[in-house]
Amino acid sequence: MNLPPVTPVDTAGAAAWRALLDGKAKPPGALGRVEDLAVQLGLIAGGPPPAFDKALLLVFAGDHGLTAEGVSAYPASVTQAMVATFLAGKASANAFAGAVGAELRVVDAGVDADLPAHPALRDEKVRRGTRNAAVEPALTPDEIGEALERGAQVAREAVAEGFEILALGEMGIGNTASAALVMHRLAPAPLADCVGRGTGHDDAGLALKLATLERAAARTDATAPEAVLAQFGGLEITMMAGAVLGAASARVPVLIDGFIVTAAALAAIRLNPAAKAYCVFCHQSAERGHQGMLQALDASPLLQLDLRLGEGTGALLALPIVRAASRLLSDVASLDDVMSGRL
Amino acid sequence: MNLPPVTPVDTAGAAAWRALLDGKAKPPGALGRVEDLAVQLGLIAGGPPPAFDKALLLVFAGDHGLTAEGVSAYPASVTQAMVATFLAGKASANAFAGAVGAELRVVDAGVDADLPAHPALRDEKVRRGTRNAAVEPALTPDEIGEALERGAQVAREAVAEGFEILALGEMGIGNTASAALVMHRLAPAPLADCVGRGTGHDDAGLALKLATLERAAARTDATAPEAVLAQFGGLEITMMAGAVLGAASARVPVLIDGFIVTAAALAAIRLNPAAKAYCVFCHQSAERGHQGMLQALDASPLLQLDLRLGEGTGALLALPIVRAASRLLSDVASLDDVMSGRL
Repeated sequence: MNLPPVTPVDTAGAAAWRALLDGKAKPPGALGRVEDLAVQLGLIAGGPPPAFDKALLLVFAGDHGLTAEGVSAYPASVTQAMVATFLAGKASANAFAGAVGAELRVVDAGVDADLPAHPALRDEKVRRGTRNAAVEPALTPDEIGEALERGAQVAREAVAEGFEILALGEMGIGNTASAALVMHRLAPAPLADCVGRGTGHDDAGLALKLATLERAAARTDATAPEAVLAQFGGLEITMMAGAVLGAASARVPVLIDGFIVTAAALAAIRLNPAAKAYCVFCHQSAERGHQGMLQALDASPLLQLDLRLGEGTGALLALPIVRAASRLLSDVASLDDVMSGRL
Repeated sequence: MNLPPVTPVDTAGAAAWRALLDGKAKPPGALGRVEDLAVQLGLIAGGPPPAFDKALLLVFAGDHGLTAEGVSAYPASVTQAMVATFLAGKASANAFAGAVGAELRVVDAGVDADLPAHPALRDEKVRRGTRNAAVEPALTPDEIGEALERGAQVAREAVAEGFEILALGEMGIGNTASAALVMHRLAPAPLADCVGRGTGHDDAGLALKLATLERAAARTDATAPEAVLAQFGGLEITMMAGAVLGAASARVPVLIDGFIVTAAALAAIRLNPAAKAYCVFCHQSAERGHQGMLQALDASPLLQLDLRLGEGTGALLALPIVRAASRLLSDVASLDDVMSGRL
């Protein structure tokens, strides 16, 4: 497997960014989390960060063999239907991308259908859906390697194309089930603390989901990141883990959405801890388990808006905060200049 | 006093907006607070809300006689210096306005200086600063009436000019002191629960501030909104209360920033409870008292980012969420259309 190296951010530089902020025309620390974010952006860029006007949301799509067990409240065909909706510009993520000024593209990591070509669709399909993780490994080691490498490549090419920041989103019926298993082994955490209602299970559906995932977990004692991804999937999760590593290797911030994208980031960070400094954790989802997964990563998300949709919607809502943090560094006068009239 | 009438929103319409959202291509309620906001925007517009591309931040500036008592950690001259910084485009609010795509204008409600004319500065000065509320009423009833009317007029003219949404921000050294007194009487709440560190008091400064405000409060038992504003000021707070009423009368949403703008909104809502439905409470400030004031208004702010700057910075960060909520209503396909392939 050939994954790109990640340069650790030089945390020794934080003091200088903090001093710059403290010298601005405002009380020290008065912009709270936005100032912390500005420091992170400075460390990621290793110099003045860009304005992040050019932003791309990559929505990774894939299907899950686990859906044969009834782990999702929605039929698996919804994955393909929602891909068509993204490409028609009519999903929630399109609406949010329009609202905040980001481009949206879909990456087919493993949808269980032949998708018609479209300018905003990138075909990186590793296979049509994962195998059923309740009864066998979802993916082979080769498939995991391929998904990770392709994800990194997609991210690196987007940066080469000129995008200054990447946001990750996903669509894949059944993927809260895979993400829960990934969290269970990589956070790690008891499985019951990782399993939630997904798109809308009732109590009976939730109980069936947990029982199914207990069967999947009982098949294997895997704890290494690649092995966990191979056992439980999915292709979109694995490819997003690669994309996190690719963005980090290209030294751009990567906006982490909700429960499923955070599971991908968790895998990426377990593969290479240096990637974490490039992740902006955007929101805390209403999905059970997300809070615990964020805590396992020692991550404090920017937003808490009771979102539980995915698609990158929460990541997009944090993008303007990132832009504000960057402009705080570049556009705001020093207190000295203000008080001496040198504006 | 001639304040514009506010048409109460027709809350009976909420069910139809909720049904529209529930029919979208996403699990019902999966966008949490953004869906609640979308319903509010629909009710405010009384029909499809606009995209809110054209947004204006009005920064109301004023000085406070209370600063003679040492209630602020910064000298009063900073108000004027920061107005110059806004007009030079170099304050935090300018940076954030640029990041989210909003215009910024300053309204001189009562700065204690003669300000040079500037295209982005509107002269609505009622007087040069308020009187010292520790020893006498800060403003006369006539001055309060004038400030309220001018604030409403400024807001209504902005809407007539084409702005689809207004954000309110402020600059006024000493204004957390006035806002604390307004909260104390209008929330109402014990004064000690309303007084915080403002721009950066240490423990001794905080104790002096509380003792000073206790003297101001002991002078009067006023509880009517106009009387409370007259006793404690300030001009920017009063004019913002008028602006809230003006925005509501023009049926546009008004973005409420932190502690001081919320005190203005509190006064506006006590003057006319119908105004509340037009207010979007944007963030919970780190300033002590803000949480209690929001609770007194039964308001749940969108963001919690430990901001304590003012200027409208928190209101601006919520603007993209408002835009996303509106586009959710207008741009997203129904689940029926998605599942039947009618995109």
